[in-house]
Amino acid sequence: MVDAVMRRAQDAFFEYKKITATNRSLFLENIAGAIEHIREDAVAIAHKETNLPLARLNGELTRTTSQLKLFANLLREGSWVEASIDTKDAASPAKPDLRKMLAPMGPVIVFGASNFPFAFSTAGGDTASALAAGCSVVVKGHSAHAQTSQLIFGAMKKASDVSGMPAYTVQHVMGSGSTVGRELVEHPYAKGVGFTGSFAGGRALVEYSQRREQPIPVFAEMSSINPVVFYPDTLSKNAAALAGVYAGSITLGVGQFCTNPGILFGIRGEGFEKFLDLLGEELSKVQPQKMLHSGICASYQKGVGNMLSQQGLKVLSRSAGVVVGEAEVGLDAAAVLAVVSGEEFLRNPQLTEEVFGPYSLAVVCADRAELLQALQGLKGQLTSTIMATESDRAEYGDVIEAQHNLAGRIILNMPPTGVEVNASMVHGGPYPATTDARFTSVGTTAIKRWVRPVCLQNFTDGMLPDALKNSNPLGIMRLVNNLYTREAIQ
Amino acid sequence: MVDAVMRRAQDAFFEYKKITATNRSLFLENIAGAIEHIREDAVAIAHKETNLPLARLNGELTRTTSQLKLFANLLREGSWVEASIDTKDAASPAKPDLRKMLAPMGPVIVFGASNFPFAFSTAGGDTASALAAGCSVVVKGHSAHAQTSQLIFGAMKKASDVSGMPAYTVQHVMGSGSTVGRELVEHPYAKGVGFTGSFAGGRALVEYSQRREQPIPVFAEMSSINPVVFYPDTLSKNAAALAGVYAGSITLGVGQFCTNPGILFGIRGEGFEKFLDLLGEELSKVQPQKMLHSGICASYQKGVGNMLSQQGLKVLSRSAGVVVGEAEVGLDAAAVLAVVSGEEFLRNPQLTEEVFGPYSLAVVCADRAELLQALQGLKGQLTSTIMATESDRAEYGDVIEAQHNLAGRIILNMPPTGVEVNASMVHGGPYPATTDARFTSVGTTAIKRWVRPVCLQNFTDGMLPDALKNSNPLGIMRLVNNLYTREAIQ
Repeated sequence: MVDAVMRRAQDAFFEYKKITATNRSLFLENIAGAIEHIREDAVAIAHKETNLPLARLNGELTRTTSQLKLFANLLREGSWVEASIDTKDAASPAKPDLRKMLAPMGPVIVFGASNFPFAFSTAGGDTASALAAGCSVVVKGHSAHAQTSQLIFGAMKKASDVSGMPAYTVQHVMGSGSTVGRELVEHPYAKGVGFTGSFAGGRALVEYSQRREQPIPVFAEMSSINPVVFYPDTLSKNAAALAGVYAGSITLGVGQFCTNPGILFGIRGEGFEKFLDLLGEELSKVQPQKMLHSGICASYQKGVGNMLSQQGLKVLSRSAGVVVGEAEVGLDAAAVLAVVSGEEFLRNPQLTEEVFGPYSLAVVCADRAELLQALQGLKGQLTSTIMATESDRAEYGDVIEAQHNLAGRIILNMPPTGVEVNASMVHGGPYPATTDARFTSVGTTAIKRWVRPVCLQNFTDGMLPDALKNSNPLGIMRLVNNLYTREAIQ
Repeated sequence: MVDAVMRRAQDAFFEYKKITATNRSLFLENIAGAIEHIREDAVAIAHKETNLPLARLNGELTRTTSQLKLFANLLREGSWVEASIDTKDAASPAKPDLRKMLAPMGPVIVFGASNFPFAFSTAGGDTASALAAGCSVVVKGHSAHAQTSQLIFGAMKKASDVSGMPAYTVQHVMGSGSTVGRELVEHPYAKGVGFTGSFAGGRALVEYSQRREQPIPVFAEMSSINPVVFYPDTLSKNAAALAGVYAGSITLGVGQFCTNPGILFGIRGEGFEKFLDLLGEELSKVQPQKMLHSGICASYQKGVGNMLSQQGLKVLSRSAGVVVGEAEVGLDAAAVLAVVSGEEFLRNPQLTEEVFGPYSLAVVCADRAELLQALQGLKGQLTSTIMATESDRAEYGDVIEAQHNLAGRIILNMPPTGVEVNASMVHGGPYPATTDARFTSVGTTAIKRWVRPVCLQNFTDGMLPDALKNSNPLGIMRLVNNLYTREAIQ
C-alpha cells in the first residue's frame, strides 16, 4: 500500500512542481475555503474525538485557514525563493552567469499531531508549507482524531480537484507510526518529514530516516519544558498579577501546548515565596478539565507520579478534583505545582524531563550563581522567558544572556503560551526541542524546510524560470550582483 | 587534549559572538592580509606537500583570501542576518511585537581537505563562513599538508591577536580523523562540522554526530560523478571543440576536483562515436601528472583497475606514461577514458561509483528512453551538465528536466569544473553529493550553515541587537510587517 501511495506522490510531485506560484496560491485558498465550508461538522467531530472545547477548536480552525492564506500570500508576493543573480562580468569574461533560487525537494510526509487536530495536523502548518513550497504531501493521520483527519482530507481533496491540481498532490493514510509511518519515511521517494509529538516518536522517525540509503531531513518538534525566570524586582512589584497570568498559562488547553511553562526559576527569598503561594492559590481554583485522550491522561498521571516520587520535591498546590494515584483515572487532569531547591535540581537530571500536561516545577535557587548553573545545564528549548523589570535586566545581564542560548524564541514579560503565525515567529529551537534548530515549524519561513537551492549556470533567458529571468516578470525582490532590487536586468 | 580545546572554543564563542560585525569583518580582512604576507612560503611548502603546481597554488591562495574578503563585505553590508520584524498591531492588541534574526550556533569543527590545501582547508571556505557567522572554529588539519596547515594557522592566530579577538577564537589540532576528529565531533560543545572528502569519511562523521546526546549538523561534501549529457545536435556541430574542452576538464588538477566530469552520456550514433574518438585522441596527448599523495594515487589506480574489470567496459583511451597494474605505481596518474553501453550501465550500479582522479566513463545509450532511465537512476550530484544546442533543448525537454532533479548546480554548455565564489553559487546537492542539500559550501550563503534563527518577543528597543532596533542603525534590508525595506520603524 505504502509503495503505491509513494509512487503516486512522486508522479504528482513532478507535475505539481511545474504549477505556477499563482495557481498554488489559489489551491491553498481553495483548501481554506473548503475547510471553512465544513467548519461546523469538523469542529463537532474534533470536539468528540479530542475533548477540546468548541471555542478553542473554532479558534484553531480559523488559525488553520489563516495559515493557508498566509502561505498563499507568500507565494503571490514571491520573494521567498531567495532569487540571487550574478551576471557575466565584462572585467572577468571567464566567469559565467549564475542564478540561484529555492526549489522543492520532493514528496513530504506529514504526521498529524495529537494536540492540534487542525493547526498541526492534516491541513496544518506542515502540509500548508510543503504544498506552498511545491512538494506533494502524504498525510499520516493521527489515530486520536481519525474522523476529523478524514473529513479535513476530504475538503483538501475537493479543493485539489476544483483547483485543477495533479491527482494525488495530497494523499491521506491511517495506521500506526511504527508500521505505516515507518514505511512512509523509509520509502526512497520520500524527501522530507514533518512531525510534532513525543521525544520517542521523533527519535524513531530520525532513526528510520538515517537508516535509508539516502537519509532525509526529519523536522520533529519533540520536547520542551519552556523555562521561565522570575527576577526579584518584578516579583516584588507584580507578584499577584504574575500569579494570575501564570496560573492561566500553565493550565491553558489543560497544559497540552508545546510551549507550556513547565519550569519556573527564581532566587530564594520573600518575593519568590510569596509569588509561589499566590500562584498555588490561583491554581487550586482551576477546574480540572478533560485531556485529549485516555492515553495522554494516563501518561500525565504517571509523569506527575514519577516527579512526586523524586527526592526533595514537594507539591505546593493541586487543583480540585482528581487525585493522582486514584484507581479511576478517567480523563480529568488536575493542575500540579511542585517545588524543589536549586541544589536538588542540579543533582537530579530527571527533574528536567517534560511532563505533558498542566504540571509545573518551581526551582528555588540559593543564589544567582546556582540559577546560572541551572540554566546552563538545561537542554534545548522552544522558548525561554524573562520576567524582569528594567532594574532586573540591568542587574542580571549574565543570567539573561544564558537564557538567550537556550531557545528559538526569547520572551520578555509575557507567558510562553501563545504562538503567533507570521514571518518573524520561530517555533523551533536546539535539540531536543526540535531535531533541527535552523528551521521553524510555525510562520512563513516554515516553507524553507522543504526546499533546496538550485543554481543555473550559463542558461539562456528563455530557459530560466520566471523568478530568474532578466525582466523579473514576477517583480520579486532579488539579489542582483550583490544588490537587493526589484528592478529588471538591462 | 580535545576536551581542553573544546572548553576554550566554548569560552571564546561566548565572547566572540558579541564582537560587532564590523570588527569581525576587520578580523577576516586581517587573516587575508596575514596569509598574503606569507604567500611565498605557503605556496612553496604546499607545493612540496601536495605536488600541486605553483601556478595553481598561487591561484588557490588568492581564492582563499578573496573568500575571506567576500565574507568581510557580507558582514559590512549586514542584511544576511535575515532580520524580520512584525510590530504590534493596533487592530490586534493581544499580538506581541516579534523580531527575528540569525544567530551563531556555537563552536564549529572544520576538517581540512586533501585536494585544496588553502581554499577548503585551514583558512578555507568553511572556516571563513563560520568565523563570519560568529562561531569559534577548531580546525583539524589534514595530514597530507600538515606544514601548510600549521603555517596558515599561524597567520590566522596573528590576525586574531592583532584584531583583538578573544584568545582561542580559532584553534588548530592535528591527528587522525577516527581518533582526534571523532573526539572533536563527539564533544558536547561542538555545534557544527564542516568536511570535504571521501564518502566513507563523511559517513563516519555523520555517525559520530548522530550518536551524540544532542546530534549536530555535519556538512560533508562527499562524492559526485558530475554527469554530462552530450545531445545529438551539438555533437554534430561542435565535436572537435567539445573534445578539447572536456579533455581539459577531465584532467584539470589531475582530476582531483569535486566537480570532475566522471560520466559522459550520449545516444548511440555517429555523432557520439566521433566525439569519443576525438576526446580519446586529446586525452592520449595529456602528460601524466603527479597526484596529491601516494595514497590518493594508489586509490585511483585501484579504482580504475576495479572499473576496468567490470563486464562490458572497454578502455577507449589512456594518456601516455603509467600503465595501470604496473608494479611501481609512484605518483603519476594516467587519464583513462572508458566506455560502456547504456544497457550494461543500467545493470551494474558499481559503474556509478566515484573514481577520484582523471577517469571518466562514457555511457552509450541505445536511445532516449535508455538515457532517461540511466539519469533517473543516478544518485545526488554536485553538478549536472547539459551540452545542447537550442534544437537539442527543444527536442529533449524531458531528459533535460531529469537532469534538473539530480544536482545543486545545473550547467548549460560549459564543463562542470570551475566553481565561482559568489552569492549565486551552489556547491552542494542531494545525498550523497553532500549530507545536506539545503546548503552550499561555496559562496556567501555558506554562512547559513552555522546559524539558527532566534525570535525576540516583546523586547524593549534598548534590549534588541542593532539589526532589530527600530532605528535600523545598520541600514540593512529587513522584512518589516511583510515588506522589504531599509527604512527605520517610526
